[in-house]
Amino acid sequence: MDVAHSALAGPVEIVGAGLLGTSVALACRRAGLEVVLSDTSREHVRTATGLGAGRAATPQDQPQLIVVAVPPDQLGTVIADVLDRRGGVVTDVGSVKGAPLAAVADHPHVERYVGSHPMAGSERSGPLAASEALFDGRPWAVTPHARADAAAIRLVEALARICGAVPVTLPPDEHDRAVARISHVPHLMAALTAARLTDAPQAHLALSGQGVRDVTRVAAGDPALYGQIVAGNAKAVAALLTEVRAELDALIAAVSAGDRTGLEALLDRGVTGTRQIPGKHGGPARPTGSVFVSVPDHPGELARLFADAGEIGVNIEDVHIDHDPGRPVGLVELVVDRDRAEHLVASLESRGWVTHR
Amino acid sequence: MDVAHSALAGPVEIVGAGLLGTSVALACRRAGLEVVLSDTSREHVRTATGLGAGRAATPQDQPQLIVVAVPPDQLGTVIADVLDRRGGVVTDVGSVKGAPLAAVADHPHVERYVGSHPMAGSERSGPLAASEALFDGRPWAVTPHARADAAAIRLVEALARICGAVPVTLPPDEHDRAVARISHVPHLMAALTAARLTDAPQAHLALSGQGVRDVTRVAAGDPALYGQIVAGNAKAVAALLTEVRAELDALIAAVSAGDRTGLEALLDRGVTGTRQIPGKHGGPARPTGSVFVSVPDHPGELARLFADAGEIGVNIEDVHIDHDPGRPVGLVELVVDRDRAEHLVASLESRGWVTHR
Repeated sequence: MDVAHSALAGPVEIVGAGLLGTSVALACRRAGLEVVLSDTSREHVRTATGLGAGRAATPQDQPQLIVVAVPPDQLGTVIADVLDRRGGVVTDVGSVKGAPLAAVADHPHVERYVGSHPMAGSERSGPLAASEALFDGRPWAVTPHARADAAAIRLVEALARICGAVPVTLPPDEHDRAVARISHVPHLMAALTAARLTDAPQAHLALSGQGVRDVTRVAAGDPALYGQIVAGNAKAVAALLTEVRAELDALIAAVSAGDRTGLEALLDRGVTGTRQIPGKHGGPARPTGSVFVSVPDHPGELARLFADAGEIGVNIEDVHIDHDPGRPVGLVELVVDRDRAEHLVASLESRGWVTHR
Repeated sequence: MDVAHSALAGPVEIVGAGLLGTSVALACRRAGLEVVLSDTSREHVRTATGLGAGRAATPQDQPQLIVVAVPPDQLGTVIADVLDRRGGVVTDVGSVKGAPLAAVADHPHVERYVGSHPMAGSERSGPLAASEALFDGRPWAVTPHARADAAAIRLVEALARICGAVPVTLPPDEHDRAVARISHVPHLMAALTAARLTDAPQAHLALSGQGVRDVTRVAAGDPALYGQIVAGNAKAVAALLTEVRAELDALIAAVSAGDRTGLEALLDRGVTGTRQIPGKHGGPARPTGSVFVSVPDHPGELARLFADAGEIGVNIEDVHIDHDPGRPVGLVELVVDRDRAEHLVASLESRGWVTHR
């Protein structure tokens, strides 16, 4: 194979110039790499090259790395085709890793294929939605199989880093079990919860707070795309859903029987589970607290609040705005390190802001 | 009864000076009403009066309105006791409305009781966590029963408005079915999802994105409190969970059989459900879009971003910050009206910001 070094020097070929493919292309261009692009849609290639994502690929190109960024159902076929046509290392950016690997497991050049999966996306699609910054700071799973070439693995890890992401290396089947648990099953649970709202009277829905909005948010995603993703990871998803059903049965029994101990046992397990999620950037989760600030609804007040928070020196982890254009005051929730919340409240109050925790 | 006018003139008695009770007291004080406080904890009364929430109640007080703000398990007993001792209108602020009403249904003065439920809270508890602004802009359910006095209903609606909330009037059993659907079942679904994380390997959890964080966030709430709430609304919750189980069974069958149509049918219902949730302030939900902005990690940059967004004139509905203190650039997600997103991107880019959608 053609990879002498672990360092990614290019050229990089992108097969499939949609949102993800074009974003990888732009991130590689940002790093100064030569990028060539192909897509069954000439329009996509024209748009992506117009954005500065590289030039159209030719059969004579000799890419060091080929990134396959096509819909889940087509991954196996396209990866096999690229292994036939090109001599470089091949990766893909699909959400499920076992199925495409199985499709090329008997390919004579399978050692040049290492799957990967950047944990980033957008509600939009197509090259116009692409961004060189899409992967900045995100985890990027790299999933070597037993026969993968060591240099090929290092090259795909280098791609993740060049795109600004943090490579997380784990076997394909373990990746699929992981995303079933931290992505696919949560998505399906959100859909099951949201499905209960379809026939609710408007007067009931008027009582909706932030909780139900958070629980159901991801369920707004494209059913056709998530159908492909879940179907491609059916075994791991079904195993977890069967666990959910057993615990749901126990929950229904506890609620129906007035068994407070059984009910609290599940709620306790839920609290423990939320604490397992690491901090946004891989460190241990730090306990956070919320500070609510009443903000007058004129331009510049939000800017003044953030200027004051910056001067106070408390790092803001997240923000939620509850803002009604018809009311004179909006409510801004600042999420900060729990130990710093009291200091922020006191300092903001001393600057004239109305706050509460 | 002693209520000549629908207008709330005071005095207002607060029974239970915890987070909710003291917040109601502070909001009433903000409106200039006389407030008296009682609690089984003298410490709570001392703290609340020290915060300016009113003075300690005496047996000679003749409150126009008594607000019972004690834990769910004690509501029925305390409401009955207050109806015995006082002549004014009585309400409570518990999360479930059928159970306390059933406890006082045969009370000779039940016409003076009208339950209510402000849709606001905090992860903290106790009078020190209270705020006069806790209810600003939130829905506040008012739940009259068949024998409730019309003037008493108007008085409780007036309390909601004086506290800055938006009264939503509906019968107690309908309220309980509504909160089962838009609050209690979403909470339990979040707990079931989070419970799946308890024995996950750290390498799997490292791939966690915003989705699983959102779906599970509410499951971090106090198990003892949510146990009381769910147990108090067992019938409505169990009915909905039984619906969930039927749909989960169908989902497991579809995933296991590779039935893409069945799978997409559930995902479609989920999308429909998310669209049922009204806009934050009761209007129809408007479609939103996200704009991502790379923000250099020095003080003042976030303030500059909001100042620019304010000048551009695009209303920011929500904000998420993905910010790592160790990296030079953070990513800020601005959630705006979908039709305004392109304008915001173009205008921010023209001011030198690096953005993507």
